[in-house]
Amino acid sequence: MQKEKKQTTISELGEFGLIDRLTQGIIIKNKSTFQGVGDDAAVMNYAENCVVFSTDLLTEGIHFNLMYVPLKHLGYKAVAVNLSDIYSMNARPRQIAVSLAVSSKFTVEALEELYSGIYLACNTYGVDLIGGDTTSSLTGMTINISVLGEAPREKLVYRSGAKPGDLLCVTGDLGGAYMGLQLLERENEVFKVNNKIQPQLEGYDYILARQLKPEARADMVEAFEKINLKPTAMIDISDGLSSEIMHLCKKSNVGCQLNEESIPIDNQTRKMADELNINPLVAALHGGEDYELLFTIAPEDQNKIKNDPDFTVIGKMTDPRQGANLITSGGSEIPLQAQGWNHMK
Amino acid sequence: MQKEKKQTTISELGEFGLIDRLTQGIIIKNKSTFQGVGDDAAVMNYAENCVVFSTDLLTEGIHFNLMYVPLKHLGYKAVAVNLSDIYSMNARPRQIAVSLAVSSKFTVEALEELYSGIYLACNTYGVDLIGGDTTSSLTGMTINISVLGEAPREKLVYRSGAKPGDLLCVTGDLGGAYMGLQLLERENEVFKVNNKIQPQLEGYDYILARQLKPEARADMVEAFEKINLKPTAMIDISDGLSSEIMHLCKKSNVGCQLNEESIPIDNQTRKMADELNINPLVAALHGGEDYELLFTIAPEDQNKIKNDPDFTVIGKMTDPRQGANLITSGGSEIPLQAQGWNHMK
Repeated sequence: MQKEKKQTTISELGEFGLIDRLTQGIIIKNKSTFQGVGDDAAVMNYAENCVVFSTDLLTEGIHFNLMYVPLKHLGYKAVAVNLSDIYSMNARPRQIAVSLAVSSKFTVEALEELYSGIYLACNTYGVDLIGGDTTSSLTGMTINISVLGEAPREKLVYRSGAKPGDLLCVTGDLGGAYMGLQLLERENEVFKVNNKIQPQLEGYDYILARQLKPEARADMVEAFEKINLKPTAMIDISDGLSSEIMHLCKKSNVGCQLNEESIPIDNQTRKMADELNINPLVAALHGGEDYELLFTIAPEDQNKIKNDPDFTVIGKMTDPRQGANLITSGGSEIPLQAQGWNHMK
Repeated sequence: MQKEKKQTTISELGEFGLIDRLTQGIIIKNKSTFQGVGDDAAVMNYAENCVVFSTDLLTEGIHFNLMYVPLKHLGYKAVAVNLSDIYSMNARPRQIAVSLAVSSKFTVEALEELYSGIYLACNTYGVDLIGGDTTSSLTGMTINISVLGEAPREKLVYRSGAKPGDLLCVTGDLGGAYMGLQLLERENEVFKVNNKIQPQLEGYDYILARQLKPEARADMVEAFEKINLKPTAMIDISDGLSSEIMHLCKKSNVGCQLNEESIPIDNQTRKMADELNINPLVAALHGGEDYELLFTIAPEDQNKIKNDPDFTVIGKMTDPRQGANLITSGGSEIPLQAQGWNHMK
């Protein structure tokens, strides 16, 4: 018989004891981190570079379901998706802060598991955990992650720089994270009816990883530098391609023609969509959580990306009066809609 | 009859509509704010200055009770207490980001009320709201506030710089916020029994303001500059004097003698304590939420503060082997205890 691991209640340690336990052994990696955990505030210095800042709040039952998301994965994903916002500015993340509110149903060991995912992401992406807040809640778990990063001012890419005629490009492939979620939810329903049935997940490792352990496109800041390309506008795909295109169009005051046939979709995504009778295009357009980068480039820069299979040109920007439209395989033009993952509607 | 104000559900606006509504009309005040709300991340530049960062998570039912805390006050207080962490580094706050998770019981108008308090604090302290996240929760309200500020490296004051022989000082007076809370809770209990009885709050405006609308000591960074004083260590009083002294002692590796007679306590605090049979010293030592600054100075700097009634010398730092002790009015020495507001115990 396996020996049960000791479980410690949070109240045994108290707030400061818990913080000490969760933050012991931090080794600072960035020279910009002057003061990390342990004072009223953290202190950084980026010399002349700009400070780039983003923050995200995740709540249990809305953003994650602990029935099928392991805590370590949750910690990793919470960090990765936040870093994605910094990369989408063409900047480099350096520090994160984690605020956590938890009810007494969580043990210290459970929080250590969550933090093991947070630290794994910190190591993967080379960022320092420099602070945060740990407190109690009446129900469930809430996580807020803040990220600080840096970039020279002239390297920054905003949502607002796209021009009519620019090419619309995307990294990687789309719709996988959404189909991974559908698979997990199907198996969770089966499990709820009969907890003796083991989940059927074989052959879907790629889309499961896209949902459970998404990676931010840290490689792109360097890839752009290497080919000497500065996108005219950029955003990361968190809510779905359609919704993100509409953000770019609105902020840049342009229209868009998105070519259905060009949208990159992985085979596992197609196979799962087929199994569940979902149109894979819907997963790509509205599924969200792919954390790929969507960006526009000046037409004369097209040569710079044509040899990299990781980049796909999926459309072009137009005059704003033409609106944002999908050009279907059949050649018809349909206005794009922001049916993205809107948890408030 | 008074006409009821129209109430809008959050789902009528959706996430992006809600963000637009809550952030319309922002006027950027700081030249360090390059990009505020509206992109994947905010962008700041402090030239050669250090970035100072802090974050705080507040949950309904733990940190605030909407039965007696008006939403506007809650918004103001959430910002002010966070700025306090930046001032306690001897730095100046410049930007804040607000993450909000709310259940569907809150209307758009209720959130506007919360934000009116947030904006009032932004104006009072001269900081810009530059971003955040707005999302739903299954129950209640969670607010995370992050603050970014700046300071020249040589001006920063940490918890760790106190030396034996340094004088321990505090701004303002202590225990008021705690006694204000006791008063509100008493009246709330009365109201729950009979909601026709109006709360008895007359004559306690000061301690109520200390609890409901605390101010961060923004004036101190300038005051220190004016008298050419750099504290050797500093912390703000959020958890209670006793707990904060122990933080300073631990981080600076010193001991402390705190003189009971010197601790500044306002008359309203004493009167309320008397009424409720609470020792006002307990309120000052363990009540918390006063958001005054606790700092140490080199003995030769004592002359610099002696003419300002806002500063009180309350003790001195000692060899660490002597520990942190309270010297009572009767002359006996009692070890300090961190019985502060520990919501996790």
